[in-house]
Amino acid sequence: MKFKTENLFLDSDAARELFIRVASRLPIIDYHNHLDVSAIAEDRRDFSIARLWVVSDPYKHRAMRIDGVPEREINGGASDSEKFAAWARTCPRTWGNPLFHWSAMELRSIFGIDDVLCETNAPGIMEKCDSILARENLTANAILRRWNVEALCTSEDLLADVSVHAAATSKAGSFTVLPSLRGDSILAFSSPNFPEWLSRLGAGRAIKSMDAYFGALAERLDAFGGASCKIADHSLDSGFYYELPGVSEADNIFKNIVGGGPVCARDVSKLVSFVLLKLAGEYRKRGWALQLHIGAERNTSSRLRGLAGPAGGYATIGNPCDMPSIVRFFDDAEKNGGLPKVILHTLNPSDNEAFATLTGSFSEDGVWGKIQFGPAWWYNDHLEGIREHLRALSGYGLLSRFVGMTTDSRSLFSFSRHEYFRRILCGYIGGLAERGEIPGDFDFLAKAVSDISYSNAKNWIFNL
Amino acid sequence: MKFKTENLFLDSDAARELFIRVASRLPIIDYHNHLDVSAIAEDRRDFSIARLWVVSDPYKHRAMRIDGVPEREINGGASDSEKFAAWARTCPRTWGNPLFHWSAMELRSIFGIDDVLCETNAPGIMEKCDSILARENLTANAILRRWNVEALCTSEDLLADVSVHAAATSKAGSFTVLPSLRGDSILAFSSPNFPEWLSRLGAGRAIKSMDAYFGALAERLDAFGGASCKIADHSLDSGFYYELPGVSEADNIFKNIVGGGPVCARDVSKLVSFVLLKLAGEYRKRGWALQLHIGAERNTSSRLRGLAGPAGGYATIGNPCDMPSIVRFFDDAEKNGGLPKVILHTLNPSDNEAFATLTGSFSEDGVWGKIQFGPAWWYNDHLEGIREHLRALSGYGLLSRFVGMTTDSRSLFSFSRHEYFRRILCGYIGGLAERGEIPGDFDFLAKAVSDISYSNAKNWIFNL
Amino acid sequence: MKFKTENLFLDSDAARELFIRVASRLPIIDYHNHLDVSAIAEDRRDFSIARLWVVSDPYKHRAMRIDGVPEREINGGASDSEKFAAWARTCPRTWGNPLFHWSAMELRSIFGIDDVLCETNAPGIMEKCDSILARENLTANAILRRWNVEALCTSEDLLADVSVHAAATSKAGSFTVLPSLRGDSILAFSSPNFPEWLSRLGAGRAIKSMDAYFGALAERLDAFGGASCKIADHSLDSGFYYELPGVSEADNIFKNIVGGGPVCARDVSKLVSFVLLKLAGEYRKRGWALQLHIGAERNTSSRLRGLAGPAGGYATIGNPCDMPSIVRFFDDAEKNGGLPKVILHTLNPSDNEAFATLTGSFSEDGVWGKIQFGPAWWYNDHLEGIREHLRALSGYGLLSRFVGMTTDSRSLFSFSRHEYFRRILCGYIGGLAERGEIPGDFDFLAKAVSDISYSNAKNWIFNL
Repeated sequence: MKFKTENLFLDSDAARELFIRVASRLPIIDYHNHLDVSAIAEDRRDFSIARLWVVSDPYKHRAMRIDGVPEREINGGASDSEKFAAWARTCPRTWGNPLFHWSAMELRSIFGIDDVLCETNAPGIMEKCDSILARENLTANAILRRWNVEALCTSEDLLADVSVHAAATSKAGSFTVLPSLRGDSILAFSSPNFPEWLSRLGAGRAIKSMDAYFGALAERLDAFGGASCKIADHSLDSGFYYELPGVSEADNIFKNIVGGGPVCARDVSKLVSFVLLKLAGEYRKRGWALQLHIGAERNTSSRLRGLAGPAGGYATIGNPCDMPSIVRFFDDAEKNGGLPKVILHTLNPSDNEAFATLTGSFSEDGVWGKIQFGPAWWYNDHLEGIREHLRALSGYGLLSRFVGMTTDSRSLFSFSRHEYFRRILCGYIGGLAERGEIPGDFDFLAKAVSDISYSNAKNWIFNL
Repeated sequence: MKFKTENLFLDSDAARELFIRVASRLPIIDYHNHLDVSAIAEDRRDFSIARLWVVSDPYKHRAMRIDGVPEREINGGASDSEKFAAWARTCPRTWGNPLFHWSAMELRSIFGIDDVLCETNAPGIMEKCDSILARENLTANAILRRWNVEALCTSEDLLADVSVHAAATSKAGSFTVLPSLRGDSILAFSSPNFPEWLSRLGAGRAIKSMDAYFGALAERLDAFGGASCKIADHSLDSGFYYELPGVSEADNIFKNIVGGGPVCARDVSKLVSFVLLKLAGEYRKRGWALQLHIGAERNTSSRLRGLAGPAGGYATIGNPCDMPSIVRFFDDAEKNGGLPKVILHTLNPSDNEAFATLTGSFSEDGVWGKIQFGPAWWYNDHLEGIREHLRALSGYGLLSRFVGMTTDSRSLFSFSRHEYFRRILCGYIGGLAERGEIPGDFDFLAKAVSDISYSNAKNWIFNL
Repeated sequence: MKFKTENLFLDSDAARELFIRVASRLPIIDYHNHLDVSAIAEDRRDFSIARLWVVSDPYKHRAMRIDGVPEREINGGASDSEKFAAWARTCPRTWGNPLFHWSAMELRSIFGIDDVLCETNAPGIMEKCDSILARENLTANAILRRWNVEALCTSEDLLADVSVHAAATSKAGSFTVLPSLRGDSILAFSSPNFPEWLSRLGAGRAIKSMDAYFGALAERLDAFGGASCKIADHSLDSGFYYELPGVSEADNIFKNIVGGGPVCARDVSKLVSFVLLKLAGEYRKRGWALQLHIGAERNTSSRLRGLAGPAGGYATIGNPCDMPSIVRFFDDAEKNGGLPKVILHTLNPSDNEAFATLTGSFSEDGVWGKIQFGPAWWYNDHLEGIREHLRALSGYGLLSRFVGMTTDSRSLFSFSRHEYFRRILCGYIGGLAERGEIPGDFDFLAKAVSDISYSNAKNWIFNL
């Protein structure tokens, strides 16, 4: 069975013209992803579609689990080709899900295949892909060049070696690789890994007070700054509640934590609030943006966590965001030396309208789009999820000032999601024009499309 | 005024073809409803459209209340024909609401009427319907045969006599009637009816401990199992919060309750969590599915409860579901010997995406669709509600593995809702194909439609 | 660049016919707005488009802030024409937002302009508008007559002089001006302004008990009644929680508050519940409707509050409504002598379905549409927000009984929002008919449109 993606989501003449003449030609600025920077620095090659595309992809794993595929063929001991075959059996049943579209787009873009992957054609397709990977020498950087990447920011722990990024940029040649800070470890006070992480942060010096902690953090932030970091990201999972303690209360809680004393959940929550506020000030000072990923419920099946690790694709959507918490945090930051630019993401789309509206609640002279409602995140990254995000941002904010798409992915193939996003964007804007809801002037529409697909991200993130 | 329903919701050629050639020909598996099993066992007849269709229908009562109809003509002392006339006055004002469509479809399917019921034609239509009911001898089972029912599961209290179902199946001839367990009484610890129910459960033996309670429950579960029960249903209303107490704490709370001691709301909530977890294990052991109806706010107007009884149509949508509660409950069950298959329903559609996503958070080797996001429930059972459910399940899960529609109704006429659902489904899938978002291959689409309309329910529920 | 609005949102023949032949010809009943009644009583004139349209409009200010416009050109010391120019720069970037449509509709309706306002044409458009305002003597009442206003209710504090309204009606000539009660001061127990407000209410007599408070309130309610008030409005912001204290507990809390004693947030919340319930009874007795605006998060940026005042456009959407609170409040009111008619608004559209469903949970013999889910409010007042509201009310309630649009605005120009609403309504109903989801009979559709655009409001609000 064939499935053609040439006109996917381009359901008006305006949409097709905007995509072909504008969006499809623009390079990619991917400001938040989880690529392995050393794979780029080494221009790593692994000419196995099974490994590149299936074995390592938690999105596909999740669909396979819903489909009843035994864990052995997902994260277990089965061979790579058994795993590829298992995915091929599930693939045709993902119609309606973005995995169906992504798979079709990726097989077409990289391998020129427009058959729907399924049980019968799986061996042939696997062989064909592997041979193309090898024949065309599709190394990591070759794949990224195929996608027309101009710049990307990989998400790195505070303790990561961010000197690799310059090497990666140099190896890449045609695109820039920058680190962005993944700040979760900084706030992971109740994680069993925190003491070990803290001792690595201290690098010999014991960190026993908030002041010492902030000093050590600032050194690492400087290192990231030196490597041209522009964004720091924090995950505020389902249940985030902002409650600011006083300085000495925060210091006491911190001391209790590092001393191994008893700490209740509310104390941890207060300390998180305190340190987050402090970090917001640090990011502001450095001209970085603060990216917040809100609302995931990551602790679902302990069984699957054991089998598939912490990022194994079984997380889900948590409760709606507590809006007063976000608002009070931003207000405190603003009072406290200034709020940095912000990109908000929510995993729960029932927050969409509230987040889109929040873009108008804080501002700064001369800074457009200071609070961004970031692109549809994770499970929302599909046709309806993206449309709902665009609609919310249109109706409750200014879509024209949106920084646009980022993959948030670990996969070299997932840059297809920029094409996916741009198709939906062109369909959305083209549809507005065809229905007479915005002017039909081509230059006007083309600017809207290119700003949101490319220029806004470039200017907002890099031209601080 | 005429209103034709032949092409209702079939807004593309693909949709029409799928409905006519596939969906409209399939039998009905109705896995959760509130039909009176003895009406089937006795093949009861009541040749009054007013009584069958209006007097007993809380959906119509609700619309009539919004329309200002005096309670006397709804649940009060007015005659059946006065009530029919009152509904006829309201009916044309329900345009846009599913009641308008359901009414039109039911009048057409059973009685061949395509006039919009209204004040002027009410007497004629009432007379015509009554005479058709009598002339065609439309008994309970004759009506169910009209709808092409193959199997149905009626919802029964734990203490119900489930031997009636075999008699009903035998009387029905062409379809199977099974009990499903309505488990609400088991957890109704704070209901004034609990002591009496508990004493009936004990049947002479006083139940004074958790162990004794579980023993008595298991006997009744066995009885249901013996009657081929496949599903147990629990209502977790607005505000459900899962907090698992230890065994002895649970036992103490239970003893306090049966002893008439003081129990606070939090204790009840803990006991509910404890017993629910235990029941999940029992259902798993028996190969039953657990169906959860979450998020109703049933205590609204005390006045209407007094007038219309507990299921009088005045309930409303409660708060969004506390997602961590559901997730921790499932995880505990999984740790505790295994999670049964689950069908989740929410009354609050702002939960849709979270529930659709949750379908990917727990899994079992070889079991497809283990966690189901069940069909749009109760007030959500209408064009947009069903579409939103299909969209959510598509984008966040695998629609292809969906068990499909059930009526959840007490009315013999409401099997029209399967047609209603299938029309929307064919419109949805046909639309995806016509827009090029899924392959247009007829066999592929036909399989999708027949799986979701019929085969998935049959396999998922009955082939364990 | 031109932008034509003649066919805006009228995307079917049925929609166009309904708008042109029905909706566009109907007068306006605007039952809730924030116009300055003395501007009507004096028939004030201010022939400056910058002042009338930009300087005073928090919606535009908000968009300008998102666009990075310096505060000086929004609420600061810049001249009126600088502010107009700043708005003109932002205006073309508001495509997709209602501001774009409102601006186009207002420039066309009042000034015959169909260019998109932008930096280059701003000086010319400003001059043209100012000269038309002067040449056509567009006073406050002349503008309101242009919009075909028949009646309007301005929102007034309990202590406002409501004798002005009769004077305004008399000056207006062709339309009626009534007060509606803005009840927020009555419940603002924790506001720093409460003591001063209370002493003005007392007018010399110190108010030291609940009884005295209710006595003083009743006098003012009588004054509003004497001025033909028909609606009382309360804002229940994000976090509203209903908890009814006993009479003596309420009295103690009240005494603590007026005595300056310590009062915790929960006590304030209890007192609000108590007084709100009492007021519901008072409104019922007087035949007024109770309008509730729920879910705003008004305290966002302290900086912007300092610069732009409490209604400066930086508020945002708060948490979803606690549904049990609303339900218990209504039930207590019903037990307590009767629930008044209610209009519910939520700022958080994830409440839409719950609110639409709540319209069926309380009723009164002979009163249609007793609980109204009011029109899409504030940030939701745009194409998708209005459509979502119409869809929710259709699917979960009776759209035919909807009281329709109100501007809730302080601007003489914003009556364009009735046209905006009616276009969307005609598009919605026309679309239902064209797709065969409701009958296509013109008279049937025309009645639906005129009821919702005009007659329902007139009958529901004024014919008690």
